[in-house]
Amino acid sequence: MSDKSSNAMWGGRFSAGPDAIMEAINASIGFDKRLYAQDIEGSKAHATMLAVQGILTEDDADAIRAGLDKVRAEIEAGDFPFSAALEDIHMNTESRLKDIIGEPAGRLHTARSRNDQVATDFRLWVRDQCDAAITGLEALIRALLGQAEAGADWVMPGFTHLQTAQPVTWGHHMMAYVEMFARDKSRFEDARTRMNESPLGAAALAGTSFPIDRHATATALGFDRPAANSLDAVSDRDFALEFLSASSICAVHLSRMAEELVIWSSAQFRFVVLSDRFSTGSSIMPQKKNPDAAELIRAKIGRILGATVALFTVMKGLPLAYSKDMQEDKEQVFDAADNLLLSLAAMEGMVRDMAANRPALEAAAASGFSTATDLADWLVRELNLPFRDAHHVTGTLVAMAEERRIDLPDLSLEDMQSVHPQINEGVFDVLGVHNSVASRMSYGGTAPEQVRKQIARWKEKLG
Amino acid sequence: MSDKSSNAMWGGRFSAGPDAIMEAINASIGFDKRLYAQDIEGSKAHATMLAVQGILTEDDADAIRAGLDKVRAEIEAGDFPFSAALEDIHMNTESRLKDIIGEPAGRLHTARSRNDQVATDFRLWVRDQCDAAITGLEALIRALLGQAEAGADWVMPGFTHLQTAQPVTWGHHMMAYVEMFARDKSRFEDARTRMNESPLGAAALAGTSFPIDRHATATALGFDRPAANSLDAVSDRDFALEFLSASSICAVHLSRMAEELVIWSSAQFRFVVLSDRFSTGSSIMPQKKNPDAAELIRAKIGRILGATVALFTVMKGLPLAYSKDMQEDKEQVFDAADNLLLSLAAMEGMVRDMAANRPALEAAAASGFSTATDLADWLVRELNLPFRDAHHVTGTLVAMAEERRIDLPDLSLEDMQSVHPQINEGVFDVLGVHNSVASRMSYGGTAPEQVRKQIARWKEKLG
Amino acid sequence: MSDKSSNAMWGGRFSAGPDAIMEAINASIGFDKRLYAQDIEGSKAHATMLAVQGILTEDDADAIRAGLDKVRAEIEAGDFPFSAALEDIHMNTESRLKDIIGEPAGRLHTARSRNDQVATDFRLWVRDQCDAAITGLEALIRALLGQAEAGADWVMPGFTHLQTAQPVTWGHHMMAYVEMFARDKSRFEDARTRMNESPLGAAALAGTSFPIDRHATATALGFDRPAANSLDAVSDRDFALEFLSASSICAVHLSRMAEELVIWSSAQFRFVVLSDRFSTGSSIMPQKKNPDAAELIRAKIGRILGATVALFTVMKGLPLAYSKDMQEDKEQVFDAADNLLLSLAAMEGMVRDMAANRPALEAAAASGFSTATDLADWLVRELNLPFRDAHHVTGTLVAMAEERRIDLPDLSLEDMQSVHPQINEGVFDVLGVHNSVASRMSYGGTAPEQVRKQIARWKEKLG
Amino acid sequence: MSDKSSNAMWGGRFSAGPDAIMEAINASIGFDKRLYAQDIEGSKAHATMLAVQGILTEDDADAIRAGLDKVRAEIEAGDFPFSAALEDIHMNTESRLKDIIGEPAGRLHTARSRNDQVATDFRLWVRDQCDAAITGLEALIRALLGQAEAGADWVMPGFTHLQTAQPVTWGHHMMAYVEMFARDKSRFEDARTRMNESPLGAAALAGTSFPIDRHATATALGFDRPAANSLDAVSDRDFALEFLSASSICAVHLSRMAEELVIWSSAQFRFVVLSDRFSTGSSIMPQKKNPDAAELIRAKIGRILGATVALFTVMKGLPLAYSKDMQEDKEQVFDAADNLLLSLAAMEGMVRDMAANRPALEAAAASGFSTATDLADWLVRELNLPFRDAHHVTGTLVAMAEERRIDLPDLSLEDMQSVHPQINEGVFDVLGVHNSVASRMSYGGTAPEQVRKQIARWKEKLG
Repeated sequence: MSDKSSNAMWGGRFSAGPDAIMEAINASIGFDKRLYAQDIEGSKAHATMLAVQGILTEDDADAIRAGLDKVRAEIEAGDFPFSAALEDIHMNTESRLKDIIGEPAGRLHTARSRNDQVATDFRLWVRDQCDAAITGLEALIRALLGQAEAGADWVMPGFTHLQTAQPVTWGHHMMAYVEMFARDKSRFEDARTRMNESPLGAAALAGTSFPIDRHATATALGFDRPAANSLDAVSDRDFALEFLSASSICAVHLSRMAEELVIWSSAQFRFVVLSDRFSTGSSIMPQKKNPDAAELIRAKIGRILGATVALFTVMKGLPLAYSKDMQEDKEQVFDAADNLLLSLAAMEGMVRDMAANRPALEAAAASGFSTATDLADWLVRELNLPFRDAHHVTGTLVAMAEERRIDLPDLSLEDMQSVHPQINEGVFDVLGVHNSVASRMSYGGTAPEQVRKQIARWKEKLG
Repeated sequence: MSDKSSNAMWGGRFSAGPDAIMEAINASIGFDKRLYAQDIEGSKAHATMLAVQGILTEDDADAIRAGLDKVRAEIEAGDFPFSAALEDIHMNTESRLKDIIGEPAGRLHTARSRNDQVATDFRLWVRDQCDAAITGLEALIRALLGQAEAGADWVMPGFTHLQTAQPVTWGHHMMAYVEMFARDKSRFEDARTRMNESPLGAAALAGTSFPIDRHATATALGFDRPAANSLDAVSDRDFALEFLSASSICAVHLSRMAEELVIWSSAQFRFVVLSDRFSTGSSIMPQKKNPDAAELIRAKIGRILGATVALFTVMKGLPLAYSKDMQEDKEQVFDAADNLLLSLAAMEGMVRDMAANRPALEAAAASGFSTATDLADWLVRELNLPFRDAHHVTGTLVAMAEERRIDLPDLSLEDMQSVHPQINEGVFDVLGVHNSVASRMSYGGTAPEQVRKQIARWKEKLG
Repeated sequence: MSDKSSNAMWGGRFSAGPDAIMEAINASIGFDKRLYAQDIEGSKAHATMLAVQGILTEDDADAIRAGLDKVRAEIEAGDFPFSAALEDIHMNTESRLKDIIGEPAGRLHTARSRNDQVATDFRLWVRDQCDAAITGLEALIRALLGQAEAGADWVMPGFTHLQTAQPVTWGHHMMAYVEMFARDKSRFEDARTRMNESPLGAAALAGTSFPIDRHATATALGFDRPAANSLDAVSDRDFALEFLSASSICAVHLSRMAEELVIWSSAQFRFVVLSDRFSTGSSIMPQKKNPDAAELIRAKIGRILGATVALFTVMKGLPLAYSKDMQEDKEQVFDAADNLLLSLAAMEGMVRDMAANRPALEAAAASGFSTATDLADWLVRELNLPFRDAHHVTGTLVAMAEERRIDLPDLSLEDMQSVHPQINEGVFDVLGVHNSVASRMSYGGTAPEQVRKQIARWKEKLG
Repeated sequence: MSDKSSNAMWGGRFSAGPDAIMEAINASIGFDKRLYAQDIEGSKAHATMLAVQGILTEDDADAIRAGLDKVRAEIEAGDFPFSAALEDIHMNTESRLKDIIGEPAGRLHTARSRNDQVATDFRLWVRDQCDAAITGLEALIRALLGQAEAGADWVMPGFTHLQTAQPVTWGHHMMAYVEMFARDKSRFEDARTRMNESPLGAAALAGTSFPIDRHATATALGFDRPAANSLDAVSDRDFALEFLSASSICAVHLSRMAEELVIWSSAQFRFVVLSDRFSTGSSIMPQKKNPDAAELIRAKIGRILGATVALFTVMKGLPLAYSKDMQEDKEQVFDAADNLLLSLAAMEGMVRDMAANRPALEAAAASGFSTATDLADWLVRELNLPFRDAHHVTGTLVAMAEERRIDLPDLSLEDMQSVHPQINEGVFDVLGVHNSVASRMSYGGTAPEQVRKQIARWKEKLG
């Protein structure tokens, strides 16, 4: 049987035959080298613990730590000779360590296995991404607070169904996103807390008979405690699934804000002007500015959700403990984390740079009889009309205004009284959009006073 | 234009024309009636608050509360005349309330809107599902603890790649799932805490000018606080996305355990016998027992992940505040919650009922040279061999045993010494599977003593 | 062990104990009764074939067929006593057949099994959905052709990045969707052709020793041929996966058109007016019209994609042949098919009913220097300028017009010549939006003449 | 406002400030350089057509083609200076062309735009992947046919629910996968046919006023025809969605086969021995062989389905025509295609190399009363017992055999007759597994004769 020829037939990509195919599908060094720092950190903590426990001599431990620092320096200098034949970052690191320090390198792997090693490395990496996401979210929240503070009382249309519903303020709208991104932040914090257990010392799957101290390595690596079941420790990828899930929810929020920015940047809306830095232009149409960054951020939920589905599907139905399927975890998380952090940075930049078009916002807020609800509420509150009657009166007045192509505040008191005789001058206090927003004083409402309270609360919270 | 005829053409399903199509796509009463209890609870809290704030008379509030109790009783008795023309549970309830109590029913909707009402109802429902999932997980954990306690020292093969790797104990394997399901429990607890904010009083989107007390309604409904931004309150579905994400992770765990049960029930493994209650038989092959419940549980990650993807996709790119798209949230969450709770119950039942086949487990554990690692570790520990040398010696001995078709403990000391002369009698202490597991005394390891410590820890934790 | 009490603890839903849990998770009659017509059709074909082959007497076959017709009539009259204890539609039907005709009912199941029976039923059902989708798509295409024909030369802005790019025609825009939906149609046609193989006679998994004629039953049921491998026949769900995939692509198209309708209906765009029949209003704001149907259609990709992910995940890694996991196939496909067909019907209705706002479209088309590209092309074509120089000249003229707040056609020839002296009167022929669209005569371009050609082509094709 | 400092805060990854962030999120050259060959092919065809149409001089066209060949040579030699500032492959190529040939390079872009250019390039690339997938599938099918031919009459257990159901043959089982992969092949063929329309000449979105010949470029690039609507041509990504969907279905098949190989390789099953080339070993346990390639293939459905979900989600709700979101299409398809082709190659290699363990297969086939159905069928066929009675008799006999711990064929005729007196010697003809499989002569059944017919049919079909 000639595999070679049969494979060669279909196009050369795998023409090198089965060995090349196996290397291509099996080796992970192409992507897991991103874990080098975590791998070296974990190895140093392990070596130190082995020495303390008398499993390794202090001299060997010293040699190992020094050697690992050298490996790390080589990698960071771009001098490290990565080898696909050595499959993964763990083998590449250990093999190079042996070149550097010789025999003691072979003792580093005592009482551990690649299974707990990769679980530890990857968990450390994901933990770092949680921290980066939290920092990125805080920066974005600060940018939103800046916009909210500037425009706490700028009126704009509040939409439902993309139809003008009631006036709100720019600050209030920005603060809605503060709430969303703050929830995202707390989700990453919870995920971080839950994942912060050390798999190191679980060995291949059953633990070890060497007298190791898992609490010591856990502490050295900043974990809260060692994972309590060695089978679970090497086969668990919950931390990655939870990171991806939290990232997906955050990406949904980003997509919603990005959609608004795209719509608001259209010639028909003109609610905001995005900065040139986050747009692209056209040499032929100098006035044209495409909101590229917003569109790309809007799209990122696609790949982040895709990565989430990918890992869920990989993990479905895997028996304990380690299966090679789980090697498919890293690229998905790498890609999702990179794109989430990049999107947060780009959104933060766009939010900082963007300029609201106050006149356009205010004009839009006032159109479309947006204070009809205020009128109806006034009828209920001041004239004690039942809700349904108030609605009927309001509808009649709106129809009258619409027919005359004027707005509600432009109706005269006589017009009003022709529909309901008890209406008095006071009604005009609620018809203007500024009066409308000022009146929404319920907790969390759009009244500038309420908005400023929320801004203050968040500023204090963020410190 | 004859819509009717054109639609009629394609098969009668929508032959009633556009109005029927619109009703079919628009009405939600077919599924949102499941929210009736939450809807009535929310309305009662709202009415009480309105009365306390002087927006409603106490008499009206009394009438409303009594009327709502009657509506609830009718629904629970199956006597309620649900109407698709009234679209949703909110309108159905309010309309019936009007039939019962007349005019005051019209005042209930003061200072709220369907937008904050549905957000409140649905959030209360999802919160209940978190509680149910937590209870279901606790029951499953207890069932697993029961199995673990019984078999804390029963040896079985520990697998990697579905290949025998090292012996572990039945108790240890059960406890791995305890860790997973306990993490699930904490995830639902975190989700519950995060979602426990009241949207009520956000009104349509901007808050209200009525002097309502949102803290009061929040407290009355068991929320920790009112949501702090009215736009966010009506357009947020994070709580559903987070519930679905946590459910998907839990469903992955269930699928892994189910896969193991299916494999373990095969004629080739025979590791467990599932009870008849969770299997189906064949009238023709009385010995045949199909693990139907396990297979169905394994499959549930499909629909739960599907529901998760569905809602993420729906929410992608929706501008604030409410869009009708969001009506697609409920059926997905209903289906996912129902199937998760059912799967937890079925898994709990299966775990309680199943019987491990100790002789088969022990025989499998002892085969396949499963203690080769123990031998290598002994060489490192006792003879101070470097890891690589120890591996080489072990490999030679395994090959010798394999050739003679015997197992490692059956080699004589002379055989051993022919490969490495320093090997002594002590080596036999680590070759038996019972010795092997007993030696894995590292924290979280498979040693029965360690397993029992973890069982005790969890029993205390659960109370 | 008291399962009952432990389950009772968590809320009553499964308080009836393990047997109720098993019935709840195992029985499929709640949903697979939708397959009743296919089940009866398949059984009749099977009985007829058995009689022809001499496996059954003609009398028995007659009794069976008559009995099955009666069962069908009972189901359609709503008189059929469905029983969860009988698990599924197959057992319910057969059991009732036995009540009606007695002993011969027991002979119907000769040479078949539930595995090939359900595979046949479900495949027939999905095949029907392909037909319904094709018909629905044709109706929608006709509606789009109607709009395109009416507005083959109405100009509107063509957008990229939701920014005005170049003028196009309403007809051209409608025809873009005709292309998409026509591809969807051909996808359903291909799927139908591929799935049109009969599983009947595959029996449990291995075929049968009875001298059956699988070609005969295939023909009787409208299949092109019997499936060629019995193991594959009972374990294949490709037809469902492909139907779901095609539905997801179609739902993406629907979501894109729906998004446009939502944006176009906003107060800022006002490009279309949707009919009242597919919108909802507000008693308080008579002018407000929410595009509910469009929003719901936009959302449907969520649940259809979710169903797709669900079934892919279920099928992942299932060993041959039948596994109970596969029972999770039906509800997903039912839900996706129902929602796809409903969305197609609603979109068809909306398209038929909607009115383009020609003045708004034309005004928007002319703004934003939308013919700048035409100017540049003219410079290349008429003055033989290299592309880059042409771009530079155009950019300068646009900037000049922008500064004066006029549009390109309002610049004088002198203005033009001040930037490039060779420009002549001819340039004004390409600056108006009507000239612009008329000039795009390349195949498939936006010129009304081209659009009309495509309309004619499609009308002929649809017949 | 100091973006720089705020970004610097969160860890340096984006510390270079907004411009670096924008370049990172916006530039596609990092991945779209894979389209270089398609891009150059498309440009050459475009230049040729422009010359034929008199839009370009022949000299310019010659220069352009020669220059493009040089660019291609540079890229393939690894000498090309890719630049992120030039954003994408199109700009990189054109810019380099200008360096090489000067001014005529600027005329190449006449009557096209980046929008139709990227649509053309990507479509050509995906079309190539369809071809590669078809070739890969054919190679895999041939490998399966090889196994099927060798083992057309080797008996093995046919499973349902992973429980032994009825004996089948190895050849029959292999042929089930032939059916699946052949359907995959036809799906890629259909997709290829449907996508084979040329977007070139759609220009930015509206077509062009230059007298281009889109049929000529379509033909030159191997397309069947030009796309018929320019708006659709630049905004359509159906071809990618359909490729991903077909890939996902194929990946499901691969995952099912991979799962079987993993289970069959376990110590408990021992049904196959995988070659060392597609397994990894252990230095310590020479007998251990981990089925790494099979596990990795099983996992690939994860990332392929993930990529599918990603692109569906990206495309959801995008208004026409081009939006920058669509730039997120390529990486997903690249990754899915690479992994699909690699998996097909690895599976082909594994199938070619693997050795069935005939004795283990046959022993397993004969156990578990796997011919009970044959016995029941014999009772129906030979003694004309109704099905239910036949089942009852069989059940009693199986119970008898089980109690005595013997198999069905080991019961004596007297034993048989004690349960049903009419049973005669003939019954033993159906009880052996070889008799059982030989009897399943229905079309597509497991009888070796039927299996060989199917092998012959497929060999002829593949040529």
